[in-house]
Amino acid sequence: MKYHLEFDRDSDEKLYLQLYKIIKYEILNNQLREGERLPSIRQTAMRFKVNLNTVIQAYDILENENYIMKIIGKGCFVLNKSNIISDEENKPIVDNFYEGQIKIMDNINFAKGTLAPDYFPFELYKRFANDIFDAGDPGIFEYQNVQGISSLRKVVADAVEKNDIFTNSEEIIITSGTQQSLNTILNFFHQNNKPNIVVANASYPNALHLFKKNCNIYTISQKNDGWDLEEFEMLLKTVNISFIYEVFNFQNPTGITWSDTKKQAIIELAHRYNFYIVEDDSFADFYFGETRPVPVKSFDKWDNEKVFYLKTFSKIIMPGIETAMLVCPKKYLKQLILIKHSLGTTTTGFNQKILENFLTSEEFSEHSERVRRILKEKQEYLLKRISKIKNVEVLFKPKGGFFIWIEVSPKINLENFIAFCKESNLNMLNSSIFFPAQWEKNKFRLSFSSLTLEELEKGSLILKSILEDSINEE
Amino acid sequence: MKYHLEFDRDSDEKLYLQLYKIIKYEILNNQLREGERLPSIRQTAMRFKVNLNTVIQAYDILENENYIMKIIGKGCFVLNKSNIISDEENKPIVDNFYEGQIKIMDNINFAKGTLAPDYFPFELYKRFANDIFDAGDPGIFEYQNVQGISSLRKVVADAVEKNDIFTNSEEIIITSGTQQSLNTILNFFHQNNKPNIVVANASYPNALHLFKKNCNIYTISQKNDGWDLEEFEMLLKTVNISFIYEVFNFQNPTGITWSDTKKQAIIELAHRYNFYIVEDDSFADFYFGETRPVPVKSFDKWDNEKVFYLKTFSKIIMPGIETAMLVCPKKYLKQLILIKHSLGTTTTGFNQKILENFLTSEEFSEHSERVRRILKEKQEYLLKRISKIKNVEVLFKPKGGFFIWIEVSPKINLENFIAFCKESNLNMLNSSIFFPAQWEKNKFRLSFSSLTLEELEKGSLILKSILEDSINEE
Repeated sequence: MKYHLEFDRDSDEKLYLQLYKIIKYEILNNQLREGERLPSIRQTAMRFKVNLNTVIQAYDILENENYIMKIIGKGCFVLNKSNIISDEENKPIVDNFYEGQIKIMDNINFAKGTLAPDYFPFELYKRFANDIFDAGDPGIFEYQNVQGISSLRKVVADAVEKNDIFTNSEEIIITSGTQQSLNTILNFFHQNNKPNIVVANASYPNALHLFKKNCNIYTISQKNDGWDLEEFEMLLKTVNISFIYEVFNFQNPTGITWSDTKKQAIIELAHRYNFYIVEDDSFADFYFGETRPVPVKSFDKWDNEKVFYLKTFSKIIMPGIETAMLVCPKKYLKQLILIKHSLGTTTTGFNQKILENFLTSEEFSEHSERVRRILKEKQEYLLKRISKIKNVEVLFKPKGGFFIWIEVSPKINLENFIAFCKESNLNMLNSSIFFPAQWEKNKFRLSFSSLTLEELEKGSLILKSILEDSINEE
Repeated sequence: MKYHLEFDRDSDEKLYLQLYKIIKYEILNNQLREGERLPSIRQTAMRFKVNLNTVIQAYDILENENYIMKIIGKGCFVLNKSNIISDEENKPIVDNFYEGQIKIMDNINFAKGTLAPDYFPFELYKRFANDIFDAGDPGIFEYQNVQGISSLRKVVADAVEKNDIFTNSEEIIITSGTQQSLNTILNFFHQNNKPNIVVANASYPNALHLFKKNCNIYTISQKNDGWDLEEFEMLLKTVNISFIYEVFNFQNPTGITWSDTKKQAIIELAHRYNFYIVEDDSFADFYFGETRPVPVKSFDKWDNEKVFYLKTFSKIIMPGIETAMLVCPKKYLKQLILIKHSLGTTTTGFNQKILENFLTSEEFSEHSERVRRILKEKQEYLLKRISKIKNVEVLFKPKGGFFIWIEVSPKINLENFIAFCKESNLNMLNSSIFFPAQWEKNKFRLSFSSLTLEELEKGSLILKSILEDSINEE
């Protein structure tokens, strides 16, 4: 059955706005399909019996809102859905960043995936910066070795050896952050056709943002010790997978850590079915137990390596350090360095040198310990308060990381809930952005990393009142 | 006619090396075409009557050198030529960066496109950094507004107004450098199919490096006041062009500055044939005359803007500032911000704030004047010395910038010449990397920006001896 919107010539609404809504409706309802060329301006004017200007104005709005795109000399085309959806979907991510450093009064930010600036090692950065100034070598502001400063690469190679990753400075690429590492890898895999990739359904939104444009995404459901590997192997038997992407320790957004058995198993599958593993190990530093959980990369003992290992220092130090590392299968190293060069020339030497000083300082391990202690305290505090709220359940009690992943009872409408949160000055990411496939509309993420205990208390009370009262009163 | 390489079983050369050379030869001569699957290891072993291991070893080298790629579960495929060529071609770019800040003794670097570190405003950076430290706000190390810190955007909007670009802070995106700006734009244009683009034959290698992978490139020849616009219009009549990329002032590598007439004309063509102009205005700051040459963007007065305007601050300040600006047609702004977010989250606030302080300081204009004076002196010094060398001619005498573009007489073999330079410790980019189409094998670029007068003197003497004596003696 086909519905149609129609003009209402008696309405006060301007004709071009009505026309814009009609065409938008046709696009969203697949009456105009992605890639399809819109009728020419003249044809559309004739069809709706309006003048050319009305059509031009309507098309302008559609283009401005990314429903259509003018292609040089060829007319207007319906943009593919992934573009439209990704823009709509990713708006909250950008909104979340939009205010940047500005602290909004009375706003409790359950969305932010960083520590509160109060815990940033500001004084240490200052000291290391001034060490560089005192050394007096302006060459630090030159373009650097594309692969990264060799002394820093040595230091990070030593650092990851503690996590059972045996590499050396020659196999490490320093990048300007996780997004640049991911882009480098994507450019490597995306040679002629979009690669087929696999992620968990509920993954890191900024990675998904990239993958949606550049990959065919398959998803796998998660258990509390990692992916459902039977489901995954079924997929491997039918689809040629180029790589999988996962945060194996304290996953974003669920907080899940894979069991060692599954970590071993995924490596074996990678060899059997010949795919690569992109391991984003950015959260393992924030363990609350005795030891850091091991990376999947540490199980990758074959000569024919299968893991691209990514780790940012923006989390354990602060976003402004803007430096990350990438351990790459040796045989692809040269290609990846070339790609990295095309994406950002070189990473600033100043921050590389400061990072090197951080990693070799005594204060760094003190800082790390302190951060772990603080996060653990915050998580326990929040869990206790959430446990007193009806209609919600914490799905996995992570032993580290920044997040908890929450399921609401079927009687709660999540979209209403999130709208209520916004009204009550609780920042929360719209949970749709975590789901590359089906949006599980009963789950959301709370990030506790940037909030004080006081804010956690206050935020929990507001959550309680929304979940127990406001929604039901509706 | 088909040539074949054949095994020589009496040779001392190992069989797998011979096999590797045979297959490489077949690839380079299109007997094996790009995308084609190589025969299986078994088939190849049978064809050449060698054992499986020999084939495996040969394939490994071919893969390592990026001639072929193993694709998961499907076998080995010939990589497309652009990959092979780009790797071989771009190696000198990366080599040039490889040593980074390390100054090689006695090496005269005619390749480098930056100022000598001695002229970097190191002390100013230190002062502005310490202003930030004194302000004591760790929030500067948070993720920032994706579009850029608003106070910086206001400052750069004011700065470009002096160059007749009337924009405002809302239309500006701050990026982490020219490569990130270019990538953002490329991701915007590369939605489903590779865009058709036009560049001069002799363009900025780092931009070409990106374009080669992501675009169908058309080229236009250059006259001393800009492109041959008749040739360009012929092309526009036959091909749908998405955008053109050019440095309109003191072009890299030729030093050419477009006449105002041609600048106006290219805008008119953009409107008539509906393409976009990506203007990289990174060198105009380095004018030797009275006034800065105007950007093409300043001619773009229509509502339906056609110019993406790019300007890095890595040249006028130093590479370590790692910050650039992008003025974008208003209607695409939101999309570009989203793309920028996917490429690098946010640009570091620390450097943004320092850049803001630079641009609003009195010392900045003193610094700029000093740099212009120094560059002018160096260029004149070098031109005088080159004019005394036989067999070469400076093609355009640029009134600004970092480079001069040189033609050698037909009796000089450029490849030999460049090899001689290397032996004599003169760093020079292999000029093939400037040419997306036909390599004009009689042209090369000399960069004078990073050399002292003494080095220019010494370098010119070596050039003279190579061009007048060594080559002829061969």
